[in-house]
Amino acid sequence: MRYDLEGIRRSVPKAVLYARQPTLWRYRELLPLESPDDIVTLGESATPLIEAPTLGEQVGLHKLFIKDEGLLPTGTFKARGAAVGVSRARELEVTALALPTAGNAGAAWAAYGARAGIGVVVVMPRDTPEVIRRETATYGARVFLIDGSIADAATAVREAVAEYGWYDASTLREPYRIEGKKTMGFELAEQLGWRVPDVIVYPTGGGVGLIGMWKAFQELAAIGWIEAKLPRFVSVQSTGCAPIVKAFAEGKDESEPWLEPRTIAAGLRVPKALGDFLVLRALRESNGTAIAVDDDEIRDTIGLIATDEGVLACPEGAAAVAAAYRLRQRGWLEEHDEVVVFNTGSGLKYGEALPGEPEELASGAKIPRAAATSEEPFSYERAFQVRAGEVRLN
Amino acid sequence: MRYDLEGIRRSVPKAVLYARQPTLWRYRELLPLESPDDIVTLGESATPLIEAPTLGEQVGLHKLFIKDEGLLPTGTFKARGAAVGVSRARELEVTALALPTAGNAGAAWAAYGARAGIGVVVVMPRDTPEVIRRETATYGARVFLIDGSIADAATAVREAVAEYGWYDASTLREPYRIEGKKTMGFELAEQLGWRVPDVIVYPTGGGVGLIGMWKAFQELAAIGWIEAKLPRFVSVQSTGCAPIVKAFAEGKDESEPWLEPRTIAAGLRVPKALGDFLVLRALRESNGTAIAVDDDEIRDTIGLIATDEGVLACPEGAAAVAAAYRLRQRGWLEEHDEVVVFNTGSGLKYGEALPGEPEELASGAKIPRAAATSEEPFSYERAFQVRAGEVRLN
Repeated sequence: MRYDLEGIRRSVPKAVLYARQPTLWRYRELLPLESPDDIVTLGESATPLIEAPTLGEQVGLHKLFIKDEGLLPTGTFKARGAAVGVSRARELEVTALALPTAGNAGAAWAAYGARAGIGVVVVMPRDTPEVIRRETATYGARVFLIDGSIADAATAVREAVAEYGWYDASTLREPYRIEGKKTMGFELAEQLGWRVPDVIVYPTGGGVGLIGMWKAFQELAAIGWIEAKLPRFVSVQSTGCAPIVKAFAEGKDESEPWLEPRTIAAGLRVPKALGDFLVLRALRESNGTAIAVDDDEIRDTIGLIATDEGVLACPEGAAAVAAAYRLRQRGWLEEHDEVVVFNTGSGLKYGEALPGEPEELASGAKIPRAAATSEEPFSYERAFQVRAGEVRLN
Repeated sequence: MRYDLEGIRRSVPKAVLYARQPTLWRYRELLPLESPDDIVTLGESATPLIEAPTLGEQVGLHKLFIKDEGLLPTGTFKARGAAVGVSRARELEVTALALPTAGNAGAAWAAYGARAGIGVVVVMPRDTPEVIRRETATYGARVFLIDGSIADAATAVREAVAEYGWYDASTLREPYRIEGKKTMGFELAEQLGWRVPDVIVYPTGGGVGLIGMWKAFQELAAIGWIEAKLPRFVSVQSTGCAPIVKAFAEGKDESEPWLEPRTIAAGLRVPKALGDFLVLRALRESNGTAIAVDDDEIRDTIGLIATDEGVLACPEGAAAVAAAYRLRQRGWLEEHDEVVVFNTGSGLKYGEALPGEPEELASGAKIPRAAATSEEPFSYERAFQVRAGEVRLN
């Protein structure tokens, strides 16, 4: 999608945003909808940019932020692509669409498709987490499970689309999904007061979120809302599926298909991203890098983020935090770098990856005192006394 | 909590809100924090009020809305109570707290407690959905599972709190949780242009959300931001645990403990709510009612909401929609009533209750044509031709 950026620069001051709702639709001049009547929405509020001081201390960064995409409809950033993609599909009078998915894009398109009254067909690997499989089917999409990876799912979809005339909603085979995902970049720039951070650490399956943000920052610079400066982009993958990391390390322009992708981070099981060459270009142009972490690190990091900051990250988001730690250890990140890590989805979709273990309390047994330590017994009297004189409720 | 409502009425015009972030903290004059420095936040954005026209048609209501609380941190409305409750606890210099829970309150308090650096002890029934049990422990809370209901959990907590001096965060045993929950009412009134709907349908376990909204509307009326008019409140419970419905039907002021509460809606497994008398008073004062639905209806309604509107409701939220249907059938609701149903949490926390069933696609098999029907094969050429002349991108 190309916009009349010069026209927007001349006629749209960024102050127009401030009267608009804080959803991704506030950036409508840079989105591909012809008419707001076609918007299909489930309430895509701006996701919070959460300061993570405790986690930052452990990672060794003074300015660490988590952009928590788990609070979007369907629980992942995929809602952005689906909201814009389905809205545009409805505008184009699409009645049936199909897509392959590692899981969460399928769920998001199924939800927005249901809302729009468009028939949705999804093909996903059998080893996608169960809640995501059931979720997608619950929206009324036809969900087909296959042996194999998203690449095999893509083959099945490509054949069906060609034969039945369905709209092909595969990522980067239609031009609108990425337009939705780029709103991560718009939101982040706005939340930082119209600038970019030093570094963005992004878990990379298909990589469209990263490419989208790269496009977003270029568009914002072109219309004069931010300076023309890119953050350093970091692509994070799993050691069980790291085609972009490998290609980056080897100086290649394109990745090679990864055989047998295996990782608990389902969204990273993409053997070869269609937009790999764009991701690699964005990494190099921004002086970024690519790095892989393993499943044990991911699992431990889910626990670390949760106990430090109260954020339940998905394995992909945890991978990004683990990567930030490794890059800090290596000195690639410096302690004063402003680093934004994307948690691309809610950990609720990955119950089996959550490290927390409840304990049993036998019938009649007491909670042990050591379950928590209180320096002094709590009393309201004491609490209010301590603060007497400084109470200024209202 | 009592506020200087007359003072607020005189000195705080509602226009002050419009320059503030759209989170529950925008209502700070009506929240119990002394200082904004004590706020513990995970990004509590206003939850969307979603028009549900397709579902409304099936239910027989022209103006049906879903307030989707599943998009809050930790995936349920319990985040509101925990955000305000933990913030206030931090302000009171609490170092350790404990609470019994049917599940989601425990998760929310564990998350905010982690963020605040406060030790959290949670006791919950063993039959709480697994993802909620693991989630809560992943935040670093000590989670104890017991045989029995939240009433038994409450007993264990009461003893521990008395013995160890922990802060008692049980609902309505501290005065701040309800202050967070009442923000549902503030948000709803603001989203409707500073008025209340005709009817609010609310799934009722402990009932504090309902009591909170009742308080919220009274406060808003007292400060002159809305007219002094209550919506009719409807309490929805499960036929497997319906103490308030029973007490309401029998004209009683208080409920009797329900023996062996059983329902897939874990949040409704509250044998006797501490604030039952307040819920019953709110129902009567507002000309509301109480109604129970069964688990089969709940399961079916999860599917209905998802396929009609793309919203993945929790069983409690689905119960509320099922109740709206029944009340419309009975004539208690009229087709032109403006009805707001609360979906109190994300369906992602209840994977086992999701009715969607994926299908297998054997290796090499084709996706069947009947998976979706397309009236005409999609082509971009045709799509753009149809709309030629009306394209007005940007």
